[in-house]
Amino acid sequence: MDLIESLNWRYATKRMTGEKISEKDLNTILEAIRLTPTAYGLQPFKVIATDNQELLEEIYEKSCPQIVVKQASHLLIFKAKKKLDEEYVEGYLTELKRVRNATDEYIDGYRTKIRKVIENPAINKFSWMIRQTYIALGFALVAAAELSIDSTPIEGFNAKVLNELLRLDTDSEEAVVLLTLGYRNAEEDHLAKQPKIRKPMESLVERM
Amino acid sequence: MDLIESLNWRYATKRMTGEKISEKDLNTILEAIRLTPTAYGLQPFKVIATDNQELLEEIYEKSCPQIVVKQASHLLIFKAKKKLDEEYVEGYLTELKRVRNATDEYIDGYRTKIRKVIENPAINKFSWMIRQTYIALGFALVAAAELSIDSTPIEGFNAKVLNELLRLDTDSEEAVVLLTLGYRNAEEDHLAKQPKIRKPMESLVERM
Repeated sequence: MDLIESLNWRYATKRMTGEKISEKDLNTILEAIRLTPTAYGLQPFKVIATDNQELLEEIYEKSCPQIVVKQASHLLIFKAKKKLDEEYVEGYLTELKRVRNATDEYIDGYRTKIRKVIENPAINKFSWMIRQTYIALGFALVAAAELSIDSTPIEGFNAKVLNELLRLDTDSEEAVVLLTLGYRNAEEDHLAKQPKIRKPMESLVERM
Repeated sequence: MDLIESLNWRYATKRMTGEKISEKDLNTILEAIRLTPTAYGLQPFKVIATDNQELLEEIYEKSCPQIVVKQASHLLIFKAKKKLDEEYVEGYLTELKRVRNATDEYIDGYRTKIRKVIENPAINKFSWMIRQTYIALGFALVAAAELSIDSTPIEGFNAKVLNELLRLDTDSEEAVVLLTLGYRNAEEDHLAKQPKIRKPMESLVERM
């Protein structure tokens, strides 16, 4: 399948078979997430990837009562950072300097740019970092589709409960979106054969 | 190139040649945006696609002084909706009913679900719609890379000025992120040959 065929093939799968995806395919999806571009390259998110059936059942019971969570091969839990403290930014700048052999002048300029955004009170940092996380969600969705792996992005979960369950330090990060990975159970899923609903191109895109 | 090769090949291009991308490739990228999944299928965004050099120059001069904007083949301007009014939601539900031949009961249940989110004062609707827009940004970025088309996602523009310049009704929508499309000028772009900076997988992904 080419890209567009893959994107037409995928849908928000509501029933999966439980069959496991291969480690190779999982790694490709995670690598797509890792390569996702983010503002200033800061990658202000992390991902938990789990195929632990007990944990999936617990998430289903306590935070996200969608059956597909229990039927997935893996669940990806995207966590967004809540603040970009000096240590984080300096760690990034040190890596930038190392990898690109950048001059101190360049690093100083870059630091100034980043700080200008971080210190701008009009910008909600958590919202901004969630946006970066959603770019990665997009990358993961496309990567899965191209591997003929089904997936379901899920926002409708109890984040507070999930944060607690995962013992996240919610001063520094929170679970913001989930993605199941696995294989559709086409017989059980009423959505499997339904046509996709999308606006026609002329309602979505304006050419100027 | 396979997906991972394409994602390694791409980078936030700072200098482009001005060469135009084909209408076919542009349409593939726009189709990827159109097929992007969004919460409840609401697609709460629109895209302006322009290759109008005068407009690109004006955006560069007034809202976004990054040279690549003037050198791009096309600029995509992603606009997020600011509210989901009854007309919008009902329009979507009508389409859902038509395309999937859904029962009134199903539509009523779906309406209740959507309204529960829309009417939840704890959820900032604009932020939520921007997140959906960023999934589409991710789809566009991957689509471009797979077509060997360069792109630059840009958040650092003056949104207020751009909204005015485009005469947007900012009660209903705002420009939230830009994406240039075109071809890298590798000789002029100091980033073209720089290694990518990404966290190692073990810092980004936790397996549970």
